Amino acid sequence: MKIKPLADRVVVQRIEEEEEKKGGIIIPDTAKERPQKGKVIAVGPGRLNDKGERMPMEVKEGDLVLFSKYAGTEVKVGDDEYLVMREDEILAILEE
Amino acid sequence: MKIKPLADRVVVQRIEEEEEKKGGIIIPDTAKERPQKGKVIAVGPGRLNDKGERMPMEVKEGDLVLFSKYAGTEVKVGDDEYLVMREDEILAILEE
Amino acid sequence: MKIKPLADRVVVQRIEEEEEKKGGIIIPDTAKERPQKGKVIAVGPGRLNDKGERMPMEVKEGDLVLFSKYAGTEVKVGDDEYLVMREDEILAILEE
Amino acid sequence: MKIKPLADRVVVQRIEEEEEKKGGIIIPDTAKERPQKGKVIAVGPGRLNDKGERMPMEVKEGDLVLFSKYAGTEVKVGDDEYLVMREDEILAILEE
Amino acid sequence: MKIKPLADRVVVQRIEEEEEKKGGIIIPDTAKERPQKGKVIAVGPGRLNDKGERMPMEVKEGDLVLFSKYAGTEVKVGDDEYLVMREDEILAILEE
Amino acid sequence: MKIKPLADRVVVQRIEEEEEKKGGIIIPDTAKERPQKGKVIAVGPGRLNDKGERMPMEVKEGDLVLFSKYAGTEVKVGDDEYLVMREDEILAILEE
Amino acid sequence: MKIKPLADRVVVQRIEEEEEKKGGIIIPDTAKERPQKGKVIAVGPGRLNDKGERMPMEVKEGDLVLFSKYAGTEVKVGDDEYLVMREDEILAILEE
Repeated sequence: MKIKPLADRVVVQRIEEEEEKKGGIIIPDTAKERPQKGKVIAVGPGRLNDKGERMPMEVKEGDLVLFSKYAGTEVKVGDDEYLVMREDEILAILEE
Repeated sequence: MKIKPLADRVVVQRIEEEEEKKGGIIIPDTAKERPQKGKVIAVGPGRLNDKGERMPMEVKEGDLVLFSKYAGTEVKVGDDEYLVMREDEILAILEE
Repeated sequence: MKIKPLADRVVVQRIEEEEEKKGGIIIPDTAKERPQKGKVIAVGPGRLNDKGERMPMEVKEGDLVLFSKYAGTEVKVGDDEYLVMREDEILAILEE
Repeated sequence: MKIKPLADRVVVQRIEEEEEKKGGIIIPDTAKERPQKGKVIAVGPGRLNDKGERMPMEVKEGDLVLFSKYAGTEVKVGDDEYLVMREDEILAILEE
Repeated sequence: MKIKPLADRVVVQRIEEEEEKKGGIIIPDTAKERPQKGKVIAVGPGRLNDKGERMPMEVKEGDLVLFSKYAGTEVKVGDDEYLVMREDEILAILEE
Repeated sequence: MKIKPLADRVVVQRIEEEEEKKGGIIIPDTAKERPQKGKVIAVGPGRLNDKGERMPMEVKEGDLVLFSKYAGTEVKVGDDEYLVMREDEILAILEE
Repeated sequence: MKIKPLADRVVVQRIEEEEEKKGGIIIPDTAKERPQKGKVIAVGPGRLNDKGERMPMEVKEGDLVLFSKYAGTEVKVGDDEYLVMREDEILAILEE
């Protein structure tokens, strides 16, 4: 099943940071902050301006992105969990 | 009776996920989250821009769509229950 | 006395659903949800855009419409009660 | 003293409905709902659009109008009490 | 010291109504409603539209104006107290 | 160190009114209202309109200005304290 | 890893003021106000206007900037902590 976001929406998959250890003790899941890093899975066609023209998108499939803690709506497609957010909720692209 | 949404509104029929079982126990209805998946039943003609031109719609009748938990207004037409929402409340189209 | 709504307003008369019975017991009025169905009694000339042009209306007199539970303002003209709402508060037109 | 409303404002004088009687008992003032009907006393020149052009008004002096319960600001000029409201707060014109 | 309001702001000086008496008893100051009438002392050059053009003002120095109870910001210049408000907070001009 | 405000922002230095005395008793600092008068120290280049053009500023360096009690953000540069506010938060210019 | 902000966003690194001492006692971290000064690390390409044109940015990489206490979103890239904020949240540039 393929997910095609509408307008200026972006589908993002969270990237879990490597299991952090403090003094050898593994911190259980609930005590860790939710990661704000993710990979762009799908990108919408862009929002319409008031003339009905599509505005270009800045991110593309495969981009590694940073977003705020409360960004997006969680959706579940089959067994996968994604975040669907507006491009405007993406703060930055990370490049290596 | 046919339902014709106005402007950029979309009529959606929820799709109930297959009865989930956890360890053989059927979870009663109230304990399950309301599905955020639905089928597009009818599509409005699009909103007017400030010049009085209709803006095109992205979804069409029959599309399988994802929407946020709080999207839309519930209406009852005869014995059928629908959600009427703005297209902007639809997050993505699901394609097989 | 005739009622002429201003701008993009619409005058709607609620349509009471047929008295519902559950196991032969008539549900008293206060226990029933207010109907969200109505008939369009009068339609305004349309709102002005920023150039002073009237934007066209989608509904017309006689249309059967669906609206949200909290739509409109109740007014009383003589002995009749109406709802005056913006066209944007109307969700859909019902056609037979 | 003459009152000249600015922009898209309208000066309205409430019209008290005829003293209602229920079973011969006159309902005291505080138990009655404030009337939502009034007569237009004065009309502003219309609001400016972003180009500095006046937008036309729909109501005129002498019109009988319906407005919502919370519309307008009460002002007192001499011994007379008026409501000053934006034209957009007027729901409809009543014609006989 | 002269006060020159910016943009679409207007400097207004409250006009105290004549000391009202009820049955010969002078009502002390705190029991009286603050007057909503004032005299225009100074008028700004008008707000800029999105093209950088000044929009014309409707009130002029010397005008007697009506405003809402909560309009404006109180300022003190020397020993004088004024209200600085946007022209849009002025409801009407009073003419004799 | 020089402070250069962005867009339509203005850097203002509060002007303390002469120490007020009531019946010979000096009122301690916390009991006095914060002054709403200040001197313009620096002016931004103006905000951009939607075409990317700078909109002209009404105040200039050295102007004595009036602003509302809650205007601006306090910043500290070295040992000096300033208020950085949008020009729109300035009510009026005072001229002698 | 390089961080590329989107639209009109700016990546800022806080500049800690020199350890302040009061009477020889070093104030612990939690008692100090968070610095509102920072260095611009990266600048987005500018926001799009409604025609899809990029609006120019006022700050550039390396600028020393002042921002409000609550500006921006904290992000962590590797071991570095940054603030990602809209350019509009930057109050002023500091020049030496």
